[in-house]
Amino acid sequence: MSRVVSDLAVSMDGYGSGIGQSFESPFGDFDQTLMLCWMFKEPYAAENRAEVATIVDAGAFIMGRNMFGPDRGDWDLDWTGWWGPEPPYRGPVFVLAHRERDDLVMEGGTTFHFVSDGIHAALDRARDAAGDRNVAISGGPSTVNQFLAEGLVDELRLHVMPMVAGRGERLFDGVPAQQWRQVSARATTLVTHLVYEPVR
Amino acid sequence: MSRVVSDLAVSMDGYGSGIGQSFESPFGDFDQTLMLCWMFKEPYAAENRAEVATIVDAGAFIMGRNMFGPDRGDWDLDWTGWWGPEPPYRGPVFVLAHRERDDLVMEGGTTFHFVSDGIHAALDRARDAAGDRNVAISGGPSTVNQFLAEGLVDELRLHVMPMVAGRGERLFDGVPAQQWRQVSARATTLVTHLVYEPVR
Repeated sequence: MSRVVSDLAVSMDGYGSGIGQSFESPFGDFDQTLMLCWMFKEPYAAENRAEVATIVDAGAFIMGRNMFGPDRGDWDLDWTGWWGPEPPYRGPVFVLAHRERDDLVMEGGTTFHFVSDGIHAALDRARDAAGDRNVAISGGPSTVNQFLAEGLVDELRLHVMPMVAGRGERLFDGVPAQQWRQVSARATTLVTHLVYEPVR
Repeated sequence: MSRVVSDLAVSMDGYGSGIGQSFESPFGDFDQTLMLCWMFKEPYAAENRAEVATIVDAGAFIMGRNMFGPDRGDWDLDWTGWWGPEPPYRGPVFVLAHRERDDLVMEGGTTFHFVSDGIHAALDRARDAAGDRNVAISGGPSTVNQFLAEGLVDELRLHVMPMVAGRGERLFDGVPAQQWRQVSARATTLVTHLVYEPVR
């Protein structure tokens, strides 16, 4: 059955991105060295292969505009995301935005759809598109927080990196008190994978 | 060799206590149900016996005044801590305070010393008292944060409970960016134990 899942890589103090995002710095002033290592650099990446694969294993994805690009206000129509011509999603990606924009079809099966009527509309469209597969809330932290605050996430997978960030965009900001259930915890050299399900 | 260690039970969003502490509510409005269960209620406590024992396995302890008691301003000399006549520390406990107070000798080996000249003075006295055993920074969050901010903690053991607290006193507030090393992670039914060492 389709579930709403969310993966987020966070520091020990819960930050998932920094401030001052730009074309050169997708995570702003957030030190993403550890993130790049555990996800992509051997021998560390080998330890985390299963979790990294799971991040893009969904039938549809939802992300915030800042995760899609560094531009603000009117769309920069030359910008097609951080991921090059063939993004790893290979399915529909619903980008939360305030401004309309035509669908953007990429190579390898990824299509970006721009949704300007809120998270519930985006979730409805993503559920329809995902069929029996999961819907993934891909980030960033403020987008995940919106879905958490409304109790819409069925599985939360945190990838906690052994660093204190000190500032940035923080997971759980604005999320009210909630009970969850611990599903699993696994530490590798550079990250700890924590999986939670909500108690409803 | 003596190390400075710190254990803190925190919510998923990093809170270790709530607001509005009182005689009836040592953790204020923080929902401590999970904490009491994983520490003290069977069958859950059995799963966490080793970690709970480690919390009080030190040669000397340091805690903030709010962890010692709910009174503020002038000392309530009738108050001898939350733990009854025989506290579990069984050694010297240095309580950070702004006002002087005579040592308080309890049953079972615990003596509370009140230190009004800052965290470094408290740490010096605790190191002297601990000998080869560890010095434990026992809490609450704002006390732990002071030691973290100055890079004084050699091992941080977080006991993450599967709940979002939403507000309260937060671990890492005021702590600048820091690199740590993941030592271990272990999930039990009601809590996940994460152990970190600083990268210096």
